[in-house]
Amino acid sequence: MKGIITLTTDFGTKDHYVGAMKGVILGINPNASVIDITHEIDKYNVTEAALKLSSFYSYFPEGTVHVVVVDPGVGGSRKPLALESDGRYFIGPDNGVFSLILRRDEAAGVFEISNPDYMLDVVSGTFHGRDIFAPASAHILLGARPEDMGSTVSDPILLDYPEPEVSGGEITGKVIYADSFGNLVTNIPSKLIAPRSKVIVGRFTIEQISNTYADVREGELVALVGSSGLLEISVNQGSASEVINIENPEVVVKPT
Amino acid sequence: MKGIITLTTDFGTKDHYVGAMKGVILGINPNASVIDITHEIDKYNVTEAALKLSSFYSYFPEGTVHVVVVDPGVGGSRKPLALESDGRYFIGPDNGVFSLILRRDEAAGVFEISNPDYMLDVVSGTFHGRDIFAPASAHILLGARPEDMGSTVSDPILLDYPEPEVSGGEITGKVIYADSFGNLVTNIPSKLIAPRSKVIVGRFTIEQISNTYADVREGELVALVGSSGLLEISVNQGSASEVINIENPEVVVKPT
Amino acid sequence: MKGIITLTTDFGTKDHYVGAMKGVILGINPNASVIDITHEIDKYNVTEAALKLSSFYSYFPEGTVHVVVVDPGVGGSRKPLALESDGRYFIGPDNGVFSLILRRDEAAGVFEISNPDYMLDVVSGTFHGRDIFAPASAHILLGARPEDMGSTVSDPILLDYPEPEVSGGEITGKVIYADSFGNLVTNIPSKLIAPRSKVIVGRFTIEQISNTYADVREGELVALVGSSGLLEISVNQGSASEVINIENPEVVVKPT
Repeated sequence: MKGIITLTTDFGTKDHYVGAMKGVILGINPNASVIDITHEIDKYNVTEAALKLSSFYSYFPEGTVHVVVVDPGVGGSRKPLALESDGRYFIGPDNGVFSLILRRDEAAGVFEISNPDYMLDVVSGTFHGRDIFAPASAHILLGARPEDMGSTVSDPILLDYPEPEVSGGEITGKVIYADSFGNLVTNIPSKLIAPRSKVIVGRFTIEQISNTYADVREGELVALVGSSGLLEISVNQGSASEVINIENPEVVVKPT
Repeated sequence: MKGIITLTTDFGTKDHYVGAMKGVILGINPNASVIDITHEIDKYNVTEAALKLSSFYSYFPEGTVHVVVVDPGVGGSRKPLALESDGRYFIGPDNGVFSLILRRDEAAGVFEISNPDYMLDVVSGTFHGRDIFAPASAHILLGARPEDMGSTVSDPILLDYPEPEVSGGEITGKVIYADSFGNLVTNIPSKLIAPRSKVIVGRFTIEQISNTYADVREGELVALVGSSGLLEISVNQGSASEVINIENPEVVVKPT
Repeated sequence: MKGIITLTTDFGTKDHYVGAMKGVILGINPNASVIDITHEIDKYNVTEAALKLSSFYSYFPEGTVHVVVVDPGVGGSRKPLALESDGRYFIGPDNGVFSLILRRDEAAGVFEISNPDYMLDVVSGTFHGRDIFAPASAHILLGARPEDMGSTVSDPILLDYPEPEVSGGEITGKVIYADSFGNLVTNIPSKLIAPRSKVIVGRFTIEQISNTYADVREGELVALVGSSGLLEISVNQGSASEVINIENPEVVVKPT
């Protein structure tokens, strides 16, 4: 019984924690393909994990199990969750990490993992990634269903997503993260943007929306729709986050 | 012939060294599942590798081959080893990296890898991970036995493990490492600790042993038994190593 | 249809970009083994990627697909390439990243990936790793051939490789990179070096070529032929790049 499990955590890659999760998964299902997405979500940053999950999950085939462990409330009252949406499965804590999945699919059934058949025999108070989430994900590949794992959760935690404001053709949004290239990814989706627009961020005005980095000279600022369908401010072969060195900059898009 | 090989090294992830090892393994056994544990053991830190190995290996299924390459003596007189313990196989240098495995299982048979059938045709003086350890691990999955690889090693190197001192109900131990969350993991196993105890470390006294981080308020120090069964000093959603900023702090546990 | 795809990028491991590539590959071919080589090539450093690729690719079995995405010109006029050499396949941008492969094998057929059958339905202007290179690699494992993907590229871009100069038995080369151990890898291949030679770098003279690090005392400089067959300057259990702290040092080898 083969199948794919992806791992997204804030565990870093220096400790043995990710290794222990992989061991538990392969101990239950030695044929699973365990795929690292990232283990470098900022510690405890649930929002970052939610945004990144929504950017990669749909590229994986149906049946994939996406495990997300950014879990500052581990061992406390927050529930462990299993859910299915869009033909994929999601396993992780009830702290908002699945917000963007659940906003897109309000009918998704969400279940608390409480059935000990799908956990390790001993569950620690500090490492549910290993003791609950890893075994639950391996059991999904073996045929278990989220609804087998516990009762329905009717009010899973949803994070506020910062929607851009639109007023008289002008869109005001913000930067939601900088990637490792220094590209500033905003919350403004391409569908809101008029074909001929300019972008204002801090003291910079970018006169048009380009198609790719190479549309401007090396080192120049460029605004474009990035690979997640969101407006992005970049520098061709450079780092926009070094050029636009402002905390939480506002981004305004105006028709020209 | 499928099977699992895990890799734990101090090679970092920027160079091509881990990639070369994976290539050698898959060249011999294209069906192997090669699983990264970590490549960020501190350079040449055999003790760190030994501790981490002992924390994850048993979660993998029987038959798994654990390869550990932290190998400051590569190319010198230290022997390459293959051993079996607890149904798993271990491949790496004779420098103490398997100390905790061998202390738990004094009957484990330990063998020097000297048979060139289980090495690459050309063995460099500087990269036995690629030339000896990777091929040996792949051959184990294909059915080779440690005893096929060379003669018995009767005195493998064992590191001193710093046992805590117990005197009149008081336990004195130390921090053996800080993980990437800043949790301070001590050498004090849970079985030594009385149910009602307090913990003293540096100028801090923690009045009780908790079950999980969330038992205290955000930002507060907490003492608990961590996921490896050892006493751990943590800060709920923070970093104990930033709060308790002492080199090699002593940790004292006293009944209350 | 199983098979191996390796990934070498400058994407880092914090973002979701590598995850999206893995999802696309597994969506097309769920049985592919996707192997991380490194995602920490210096941003936009095509030369570093070319050197590392040439050091690991041949250890993988024939039929492996090596994907290299260091792609500062993404979305511009540079072509996406597919090629076969030495029984392996290579997928990535036409910017010199395959220079060392193509110099060794001048007969290799190189093809532009232009057939949309081997791309995602929507191709972004900023992420060809996900939209072109990942799907092309997965289709190769399913039986597609580079020549199916587009027309021949007769003049792929080749980087200048800095050959060492030989004059009267004296070899003058340079350091091409420092690895994460601080080993300084030069462009001087072992075949040029006379058995009895000394090495001069900056103000240091190393009186002989050793076989391994342990041939000198801990902390001492040592010159040896490293695991890629190139002259290397190292420090036993230390870092040569910290000792020889010069930008682009010249390295001279003289017979003794």
